[in-house]
Amino acid sequence: MASESQNWVFMVTAQTPTNIAVIKYWGKRDETLILPVNDSISLTLDPSHLCTTTTVAVSSAFHQDRMWLNAKEISLSGGRFQSCLREIRARACDVEDENKGIKITKEDWAKLHLHIASYNNFPTAAGLASSAAGFACLAYALGKLMDVKEDESQLSAIARQGSGSACRSLFGGFVKWIMGKEDNGSDSLAVQLADEKHWDDLVIVIAVVSSRQKETSSTSGMCESVETSLLLQHRAKEIVPKRILQMEEAIKNRDFASFSQLTCADSNQFHAVCLDTSPPIFYMNDTSHRIISIAEKWNRSEEAPQGQMLF
Amino acid sequence: MASESQNWVFMVTAQTPTNIAVIKYWGKRDETLILPVNDSISLTLDPSHLCTTTTVAVSSAFHQDRMWLNAKEISLSGGRFQSCLREIRARACDVEDENKGIKITKEDWAKLHLHIASYNNFPTAAGLASSAAGFACLAYALGKLMDVKEDESQLSAIARQGSGSACRSLFGGFVKWIMGKEDNGSDSLAVQLADEKHWDDLVIVIAVVSSRQKETSSTSGMCESVETSLLLQHRAKEIVPKRILQMEEAIKNRDFASFSQLTCADSNQFHAVCLDTSPPIFYMNDTSHRIISIAEKWNRSEEAPQGQMLF
Repeated sequence: MASESQNWVFMVTAQTPTNIAVIKYWGKRDETLILPVNDSISLTLDPSHLCTTTTVAVSSAFHQDRMWLNAKEISLSGGRFQSCLREIRARACDVEDENKGIKITKEDWAKLHLHIASYNNFPTAAGLASSAAGFACLAYALGKLMDVKEDESQLSAIARQGSGSACRSLFGGFVKWIMGKEDNGSDSLAVQLADEKHWDDLVIVIAVVSSRQKETSSTSGMCESVETSLLLQHRAKEIVPKRILQMEEAIKNRDFASFSQLTCADSNQFHAVCLDTSPPIFYMNDTSHRIISIAEKWNRSEEAPQGQMLF
Repeated sequence: MASESQNWVFMVTAQTPTNIAVIKYWGKRDETLILPVNDSISLTLDPSHLCTTTTVAVSSAFHQDRMWLNAKEISLSGGRFQSCLREIRARACDVEDENKGIKITKEDWAKLHLHIASYNNFPTAAGLASSAAGFACLAYALGKLMDVKEDESQLSAIARQGSGSACRSLFGGFVKWIMGKEDNGSDSLAVQLADEKHWDDLVIVIAVVSSRQKETSSTSGMCESVETSLLLQHRAKEIVPKRILQMEEAIKNRDFASFSQLTCADSNQFHAVCLDTSPPIFYMNDTSHRIISIAEKWNRSEEAPQGQMLF
């Protein structure tokens, strides 16, 4: 580090929206690399609504990597944070700020420590994909800080190692997470199916029926589903591949009837697999049931579906 | 009818308990004959608790078949009542009461009308198998009245045409409804796996979390599941046949750990198929979820399962 002062700090702030799957991801074939048992498709929300804001800072004055989530310090020792940090650092480039007279070389990044501050403007771990927005934002912000040259799809494969569905938040609009075939996960990444302008009269309403933290985290829940649900593999192998094709077609044609029918059916089937898990996982409550019933009745009373539940 | 008086009435009263499936019946392959897509196994409850009491009466003074359920007259015009009445009448024998000087011949039964009064000592159509107890009791009482010679299994095939799970209430203890293969349903009937004395320290606790009538009847619900759930056939063909064998083994050996594990898993999977139906069917509410969670925690805190939810 060619720097006159020890007091410099380099920072980047990024903002990343959460995403809501319309064809669900539930079940991993590799726990460490976070490789899914099926493709999934999601919509990225408007960043002005539900989003994570993350500031990453580097300074030679920092003595260890540290992170704060919603203003409370959390541990970075977990494998998922370590994977993301390791993968981004491995791709770091030379960064120079001529005004401040600072230059950080590729090699310096391995020795420098980071401070990370992240904030969700919506309930954390309550079924609103906070970890998706969080890890996507982290990967993106770190990538900017270290001048990583990889494109969004390549970055998505890194964010994926933090939280599977995070890979889908690297793009706006309609995004597909391709499960991939490789054992090393190199082809398990997100691609944009259509951007946010493609279907701009589509509105997503998020009803927070409970802001309490989920009793079963997605990570442990889907692990238990893979181990105990006798329906999960059938869903992943026989049902989802066809639905993915139908959903891509519905999005392409802005066909709301098909889009909403597939979205509802797949959301319900995801909850069905959760229920088929031992012990069963309940992510819906009586209020969720009531909202779904109202939306179903509304749709049946109109000629074509008018509104739908996404989660 | 050789009878001096027109005022005679012949009556039979029977009492039949409800039954709770431990391997669930959900889905028909024939709607009219009520032939299921898989075998099922149930426990018949103690008749002193949840039961139907039915009195069937015949008299030459009756001008039409009539029925009262819980003291309110209901229509007998439905195909299910008509099937049961037709099948029992076809097997009627000569009945004689020497004291009253009445003789009803086989042929007379086709011309005579019935009055039927049925009463459930538990909530009707609230998920407690009221129609199972009801049609089993009706078939049994009519069989007695008309001196039908068929055994319980043969009677069960008639009760089945009133309500599928009714066939299992013709026996006490542990009962299997064999789905059968014949198109005419002749081999779709109940057999007793073990009587009520076989496992007499097994206690069933029924928690009525709501006594309101179900929003979706079993009949229309399972019809919609067969039409729309992509998981139902996989369950019926690939999962249930193995579970039936495991459950028979668990009952034979009074192996509570296996019995309860299978019961819970199958109950949850039945609810999962309901959820996978379009529109989704919710038979559980927040209270059901809470009870299941408590039972699951209780089991995990003990060395072996101590208690379980059956429905």
